[in-house]
Amino acid sequence: MSGDDIYRRQRFGQKTGFGQFPALLVVDFVNGFHDPEVLGGGNIPDAVMATLPLLEFARNRAIPVIFTRIVYAPDGSDASLWCQKVPRLQDLTEEAPESQIVATLAPRPGEIVIRKTQASAFFGTHLAACLVAKKIDTLIVTGCTTSGCVRATVVDAMSLNYRTIVASDCVGDRALDPHRANLFDMGQKYSDLMRGAEIIAALDRRIAETVDSTEMA
Amino acid sequence: MSGDDIYRRQRFGQKTGFGQFPALLVVDFVNGFHDPEVLGGGNIPDAVMATLPLLEFARNRAIPVIFTRIVYAPDGSDASLWCQKVPRLQDLTEEAPESQIVATLAPRPGEIVIRKTQASAFFGTHLAACLVAKKIDTLIVTGCTTSGCVRATVVDAMSLNYRTIVASDCVGDRALDPHRANLFDMGQKYSDLMRGAEIIAALDRRIAETVDSTEMA
Amino acid sequence: MSGDDIYRRQRFGQKTGFGQFPALLVVDFVNGFHDPEVLGGGNIPDAVMATLPLLEFARNRAIPVIFTRIVYAPDGSDASLWCQKVPRLQDLTEEAPESQIVATLAPRPGEIVIRKTQASAFFGTHLAACLVAKKIDTLIVTGCTTSGCVRATVVDAMSLNYRTIVASDCVGDRALDPHRANLFDMGQKYSDLMRGAEIIAALDRRIAETVDSTEMA
Amino acid sequence: MSGDDIYRRQRFGQKTGFGQFPALLVVDFVNGFHDPEVLGGGNIPDAVMATLPLLEFARNRAIPVIFTRIVYAPDGSDASLWCQKVPRLQDLTEEAPESQIVATLAPRPGEIVIRKTQASAFFGTHLAACLVAKKIDTLIVTGCTTSGCVRATVVDAMSLNYRTIVASDCVGDRALDPHRANLFDMGQKYSDLMRGAEIIAALDRRIAETVDSTEMA
Repeated sequence: MSGDDIYRRQRFGQKTGFGQFPALLVVDFVNGFHDPEVLGGGNIPDAVMATLPLLEFARNRAIPVIFTRIVYAPDGSDASLWCQKVPRLQDLTEEAPESQIVATLAPRPGEIVIRKTQASAFFGTHLAACLVAKKIDTLIVTGCTTSGCVRATVVDAMSLNYRTIVASDCVGDRALDPHRANLFDMGQKYSDLMRGAEIIAALDRRIAETVDSTEMA
Repeated sequence: MSGDDIYRRQRFGQKTGFGQFPALLVVDFVNGFHDPEVLGGGNIPDAVMATLPLLEFARNRAIPVIFTRIVYAPDGSDASLWCQKVPRLQDLTEEAPESQIVATLAPRPGEIVIRKTQASAFFGTHLAACLVAKKIDTLIVTGCTTSGCVRATVVDAMSLNYRTIVASDCVGDRALDPHRANLFDMGQKYSDLMRGAEIIAALDRRIAETVDSTEMA
Repeated sequence: MSGDDIYRRQRFGQKTGFGQFPALLVVDFVNGFHDPEVLGGGNIPDAVMATLPLLEFARNRAIPVIFTRIVYAPDGSDASLWCQKVPRLQDLTEEAPESQIVATLAPRPGEIVIRKTQASAFFGTHLAACLVAKKIDTLIVTGCTTSGCVRATVVDAMSLNYRTIVASDCVGDRALDPHRANLFDMGQKYSDLMRGAEIIAALDRRIAETVDSTEMA
Repeated sequence: MSGDDIYRRQRFGQKTGFGQFPALLVVDFVNGFHDPEVLGGGNIPDAVMATLPLLEFARNRAIPVIFTRIVYAPDGSDASLWCQKVPRLQDLTEEAPESQIVATLAPRPGEIVIRKTQASAFFGTHLAACLVAKKIDTLIVTGCTTSGCVRATVVDAMSLNYRTIVASDCVGDRALDPHRANLFDMGQKYSDLMRGAEIIAALDRRIAETVDSTEMA
């Protein structure tokens, strides 16, 4: 029996859908994860490009946008075990070019930028508190890498009962096999998978419906 | 360039090794994750069998053993979004046969059993506090599923700077492709991978060395 | 300059008010914290009585009710440092009479009961996830002790950006000086303070307004 | 019965003592919490002075030193509910003079500085992970305010099973009543209380003993 069959038979992969208040989460789209000579490569540049319309849509519709970056202290004081496992992470400091968000997606004033030291955007950060403050119940997730920080973030979002939609063409990885394997895992267990354009269409429909029902009232 | 090549070139997959104070963590080896008719199957029964000598070794050497189980309230009061994604999780209640640890690995008095509602053994539990209390710095991880609760637990352990050794033949999954893909991800990014017998040999050697140096002193 | 003066001058103690979706949190009103021969006494019995109308109100208006209890494993496996500091905490096990919620406030099926091992209802529990699942943005807090588990819970609730209203006559402590000092701290820094009857009146008004605006629409 | 009596009779206030690996935690000794015109005053300047010898001792003996600061984004993007309760917190941004650690205690390269947005040094930070990385089991706590960030940090440290010694003359508050009330609460429930000089003497003795036993071996 193939993997798909047993997952279907055990009823994995149900849809959880959208809640009422989405935010767009852009995970670790920084220069160092874009560049194949540092920690990037693969389909990450494509995922950055595919994120552009989603980001523009969110900004136009006042959907909160939250970015994440990995930032370690330049003096090595908070170096983690993860930096032993993956030594180049240590280069991602506040001022290093590698840790700056790619220019095409640069955050605007008022958009939250979460600094983190680990894979998950929730670990050791105030992201959970920010989501409560903004009454968010749904995370649209883009970023990289699919098998690293995106996956870890999505697992934590599900653990906290946030509905999560992974924008499948807006997440990328340095190698395609882990990318695909992690999309499978997330789709079966932790999030819905939709392409960026589908997400835009779905949100557009929901906003239109809300406006309609308000006008009719 | 294949996935392996780019991971090697970017210097992923360094070894983090053992610390001084290991604990054995047995993740979710419960009847419901053993049985292919519920949430189990695949190589999980083999992983249970392979865990037996590791568990016996830990008990003989006074290495702390910690078990985890998923437990939801029988009245549905704490049902999570995860139970929408994977409906059968809801059946794992305190008294349900599906949520009991498999008989061959039954916990003994004094061994910690962590009840959890999410994938990671750290999420919403006092596992981190228990590790501090016991001065643990290294987790030997067995259990299931490789692509679910084992992976989520290992990511959180790394995030907390615990050295993690995944016992590669003592973790199992309902389907082999996700099992292998998640072993790859964990080995590259979050933990060392060793077979159970190698872990026993390595710990044996370390204990022998400690005894030697004490006797010589 | 007295404490009050400097707090006022530095602009502490602003009101944060109610959000839209309150829950009633009943912290550790268990037999052992009621009984002065165990860990209780002082004005805790009065606070239990004062909580009754608030609990009844919440149940009538379908405001979610969440209880907490301290529960340690009977075999001592998860005993904490806190049990060294306060040895009698160790007696609060799943089946012990001391750790049962007082009969007059007994939880009903469907009401969440959070088991915890530390002061804060958030520490090592899935309370934060439950609040997200139920879209709660405001916690009405009753329970005991004011200077212990209530205070710790309120600090964490504020940290997570939940609006918190401490029902000042529905929280109690074994001694009155710490009770009063902690009400002061919470009122200045972490929560609004209102009497139970005022909270009922305020919620009643809000519900009436909501119904009105719906009917008018 | 006075508060003290019932706490004694219920066996609160046991000593938890030192572990093997202490760190010195300096909580929020920043200009804004020093200055009575901002958020400081009271005995905070005295507590800063009393911390100097403890800090020098820690540095001489290679005891890790960890500082904390409150830092909010200057664009208001991560403003919290706490900033509504205490509006001046919002002024504590990365570059603001109010949020810089007081010059006499300035951190040296290699000393961890934890940025936080809430009272507890553990909330939304990687402090817990840093303690694991450095194998710390004991926190010596200085800083301000006793009734705010010190108290919240000490409760979380206890919850994580870290032994905590509050240096009673090295913590301060804008008003003395809350200072004293919170020392009482912490001493009864969450930490040992010792004066800075006593802590130095105790650690000196422990280090001497360790050297002795090593030399004799």
